Amino acid sequence: MITLQVKKFSIPEIIFGRGSLEYVGLCARRLGAEKVFLVSDSGLEKAGWVEHVTSVLDREKLSWVYYSDVVSNPRDFQIQQGAEFYKQGRADVVIALGGGSPMDAAKGIALVASNGGKIHDYEGANRIHRPLPPMVFVPSTAGSGSDISQFAIITDVKRRVKMSIISRTLVPNISVIDPEILLTKNESLIVASAIDAMCHAVEAYVSKIASPFTEVQSLKAIQLIMENLETAKQTRDLQSLENLSIASTSAAMSFSNASLGAEHALAHSLGGMYDVMHGLVHPVLLPPVMRFNLSTCVEKMADIGRILLGKSRRSAKSTALAGIERLEDYCKSLGVPVRLRKIIPDDSGLKELCRMASNDACLLTNPRTATWEDLLSICEEAW
Amino acid sequence: MITLQVKKFSIPEIIFGRGSLEYVGLCARRLGAEKVFLVSDSGLEKAGWVEHVTSVLDREKLSWVYYSDVVSNPRDFQIQQGAEFYKQGRADVVIALGGGSPMDAAKGIALVASNGGKIHDYEGANRIHRPLPPMVFVPSTAGSGSDISQFAIITDVKRRVKMSIISRTLVPNISVIDPEILLTKNESLIVASAIDAMCHAVEAYVSKIASPFTEVQSLKAIQLIMENLETAKQTRDLQSLENLSIASTSAAMSFSNASLGAEHALAHSLGGMYDVMHGLVHPVLLPPVMRFNLSTCVEKMADIGRILLGKSRRSAKSTALAGIERLEDYCKSLGVPVRLRKIIPDDSGLKELCRMASNDACLLTNPRTATWEDLLSICEEAW
Repeated sequence: MITLQVKKFSIPEIIFGRGSLEYVGLCARRLGAEKVFLVSDSGLEKAGWVEHVTSVLDREKLSWVYYSDVVSNPRDFQIQQGAEFYKQGRADVVIALGGGSPMDAAKGIALVASNGGKIHDYEGANRIHRPLPPMVFVPSTAGSGSDISQFAIITDVKRRVKMSIISRTLVPNISVIDPEILLTKNESLIVASAIDAMCHAVEAYVSKIASPFTEVQSLKAIQLIMENLETAKQTRDLQSLENLSIASTSAAMSFSNASLGAEHALAHSLGGMYDVMHGLVHPVLLPPVMRFNLSTCVEKMADIGRILLGKSRRSAKSTALAGIERLEDYCKSLGVPVRLRKIIPDDSGLKELCRMASNDACLLTNPRTATWEDLLSICEEAW
Repeated sequence: MITLQVKKFSIPEIIFGRGSLEYVGLCARRLGAEKVFLVSDSGLEKAGWVEHVTSVLDREKLSWVYYSDVVSNPRDFQIQQGAEFYKQGRADVVIALGGGSPMDAAKGIALVASNGGKIHDYEGANRIHRPLPPMVFVPSTAGSGSDISQFAIITDVKRRVKMSIISRTLVPNISVIDPEILLTKNESLIVASAIDAMCHAVEAYVSKIASPFTEVQSLKAIQLIMENLETAKQTRDLQSLENLSIASTSAAMSFSNASLGAEHALAHSLGGMYDVMHGLVHPVLLPPVMRFNLSTCVEKMADIGRILLGKSRRSAKSTALAGIERLEDYCKSLGVPVRLRKIIPDDSGLKELCRMASNDACLLTNPRTATWEDLLSICEEAW
């Protein structure tokens, strides 16, 4: 009786724009806050943003505790420590300020603090049963989309794997997106984040569970990244940075609801095994994954190609292929590594990597079924 | 310190697709329901949809009370009666099944039952201070967007005015959109609803507080309506009806967050004074309002024109103007009245109508400032 054609679309309330950081205290207050658990990292401390947020909280007469023990690719044991600290601090609302790592760490901490057990208990889709404390997230990069998404990615140190934890419960209540924060980010982070958003948009667009509500967001994101990344990189013009924020947010609305694909399955394994920075993986793996998927979604790949190229070629297939080439050339022009051998030490772990990736939840929605051997071929093509 | 460039974007969780009606009980349960307050109307009873919903609730072992005392353009006194009935019924979650009227009535009832006083106390923007009971809305038309929006429109019988009540609190928790419900709707309702959605999309697109998040939804809606209304009208093909549902939902995501303009201000007054069916007003008033606004938003009107025409003309202005003409011709071809004199008895009340419209909250976001005399000129042009 219940059909498979039903699609879900869920996003947080969004407060967007220059200066929106000033609202973060009001947002927490509206969610019932008396004491805020603030998660951020040392980079944002140095840039002055943590102090900015705490001064907004002070102005709003909210007390707070601050947790900054977060590294890139957050680890399972750090989540457990953070959850202890959360409980000791007796906070009632979580504010995360940061890129994907502090935001995912904050989700993990909120999850373990409210649902108990270990973070590993929740790996996979829809395994969270009790509500989390209210969350207000402030992204400091235009890429991860964790402020919008149902995803948290936490590294299992023992297994050397990035666990995907996916649940509607992990969508923050409010995302406060202030593009001015991007002004203090360096060029390579802006590029890596934008390519992460591009990859979210592309994988979600061709996902098996894409819907008209996610597709429109994917295409908008791809267009905005192509139109703005070059200027944002060269001039740090605030309007371009703002457009990259819109792109990242749009891409996250898409992937949070349509999920991702083979590229992210591999990216998570690469991050887990080698601690590679997430944004570095996509220029290497996205084009070969798109070629692998092409036969099952030619029309959709042509839609992407049309935006990347700014025009159509004679057939859908040639538009799609030219689009993938254009993306490859574009990544090269950004000066980032485009071969797998440049980002991991050697190829001895590739088989293990691909076996691990074949268990990642993201692979379930890849448009073409991929075995671990298929993933290995993709890695060999990318080598 | 707080800038005016900050934009908000808030929508309910959406469950979309053929057969999604089967989930309505689960949704209510998830929001803590034990006893549902179900609002619908006699048309939906006759078509069998009310029984369908109650059987889903029975299957989910939820008790329910049913309220159907709803008319087109719901009245203030009906809201007060409904709120009494709600309290007597001791229900905890509201489900509305219907077009704009049952859904707006359900919002009004939920509001008065939880916040007290009279519905008139909440007229205007942001005047609701206490939370409403959880709401699951099931739209039965592809037009009003009340299942997505922050708006409830209730008629003040004494003043003969439609009150706009606007608050984030009025966004339902979950919108369950099942396009199969449209199969039992007649042609004229499908057309009137689609034109309502078109008008939402156009007015929100040029609104003073439009954002990139709303603009993309407006353009998508206009495109889908142009591509699908003709077929939906002629063949009742389910795919076309589904696409009109997507259009209506997209348009509602846009207008709920960007608000509307002069056309809806006038439409509310027309509905209040003459009880005109909302969907009948737009073919009459939208083109002259677009001409009035043109000088302040030529580029945006050209974006709309490009979609309506399927191509650009030589300049932005000529594309915009040709688009408005195209829309006018299109409305004529649909066989609906396109002159104001066809939908109200005489012109004796026009001045009062326009003075009333000049107080409507929708006028605040019209791209061009409009006095009541400007509105009168628009009505005279439309006469």
